[in-house]
Amino acid sequence: MATTYKLEYFNFTGRGEPIRMILSYGNLEFEDIRYAREEWPKVKPTTPLGQVPVLHINDKSITQTGPICRYLANIVGLAGNNNEENLEIDVAAEMIGDVLKTAYEYRFETDETRKEKVKERLLELMPIIFTVLEENAIRNQGYIALDRVTFADIIFLCAYEDIRNILENTDVIADYPNLQEVKKNLLSIESLKDWIQKRPTLPIFIYDLKNDIASE
Amino acid sequence: MATTYKLEYFNFTGRGEPIRMILSYGNLEFEDIRYAREEWPKVKPTTPLGQVPVLHINDKSITQTGPICRYLANIVGLAGNNNEENLEIDVAAEMIGDVLKTAYEYRFETDETRKEKVKERLLELMPIIFTVLEENAIRNQGYIALDRVTFADIIFLCAYEDIRNILENTDVIADYPNLQEVKKNLLSIESLKDWIQKRPTLPIFIYDLKNDIASE
Repeated sequence: MATTYKLEYFNFTGRGEPIRMILSYGNLEFEDIRYAREEWPKVKPTTPLGQVPVLHINDKSITQTGPICRYLANIVGLAGNNNEENLEIDVAAEMIGDVLKTAYEYRFETDETRKEKVKERLLELMPIIFTVLEENAIRNQGYIALDRVTFADIIFLCAYEDIRNILENTDVIADYPNLQEVKKNLLSIESLKDWIQKRPTLPIFIYDLKNDIASE
Repeated sequence: MATTYKLEYFNFTGRGEPIRMILSYGNLEFEDIRYAREEWPKVKPTTPLGQVPVLHINDKSITQTGPICRYLANIVGLAGNNNEENLEIDVAAEMIGDVLKTAYEYRFETDETRKEKVKERLLELMPIIFTVLEENAIRNQGYIALDRVTFADIIFLCAYEDIRNILENTDVIADYPNLQEVKKNLLSIESLKDWIQKRPTLPIFIYDLKNDIASE
């Protein structure tokens, strides 16, 4: 019997989109269940930890984005081949995660004074991390972690789209030509391109990766 | 030539202790560099990302606690043997990480109203996660992720010590007999016991794992 995948998440990119992209990269069909914000109070108690994303693989439910991504990456060929390679991927993914976490914190902060401070932290952290990733991308000729595409690249692409939207369409990799190359490499992979073109368009998005596919 | 390990972190448990424990579990000798808070401004610019922990393996510097733990776990035999086992470990470690992150947020919040709210979130999240971990520990007969010790158990032990201190010595697993069993199993491993007994005692600690070793 074929494995069935079903993803529960909000009707948003966020923590769910890397999972959708890794599944799509591997041409693994999945049911893409998307909740509107107002449905959440009803859905929350039905999830294992009161959280989404939840990935259902056959009748098993898995929570936590990072572990899900790493697990699927091993299935679709986006993980490392040994402990050293996995370390490279994990460190890159975690660095991107730190930036993204700070960007979300900025997005959802309601106190104006604090929001400004979080923004300062974000604008301080971003160039530190992006400089390291840019050096990686030079060494790996257009990839973030290894000399081939891995799930760290996909996590980067998703983070880029979200951060660009959070920062009102600021192209945060404008000064990093090799990170632009990473994006271009990813957007030239047929299975990813297909997914990005067919996924629902979010009305709140100013910038959509679709734009970059269209312009190439 | 033997591999040399050197860890830079604060003179505290926090994000550094799981790394120290995994190294100790595997009897891998390491230089345990500990900075006082007041040294940090001087040290910060010398680190790769302006952050600690940094683990130096020979002349390579690695940042990010999670990836470091997973990498070392693979070396010392605390990781899974396949993708499914690694998923179990990662999910457990990540769940514990969520609780710990919330506990640190509570610890460092200075606004009283916010601090109360974070505490509410912590006291709501903890029983959800601990109930899942307790079920795991029953199924695995005294271990968090698999039917043997893994780095998820060590992450649990370190988180337990920190959270107990943050919550003024509240024994947060008092109602979870199987999580107590996990702690007991870990504290009966000679290499871990040795480390806990020989590591520096922190003056700010109300509760130290040393206490539990002494009382057995």
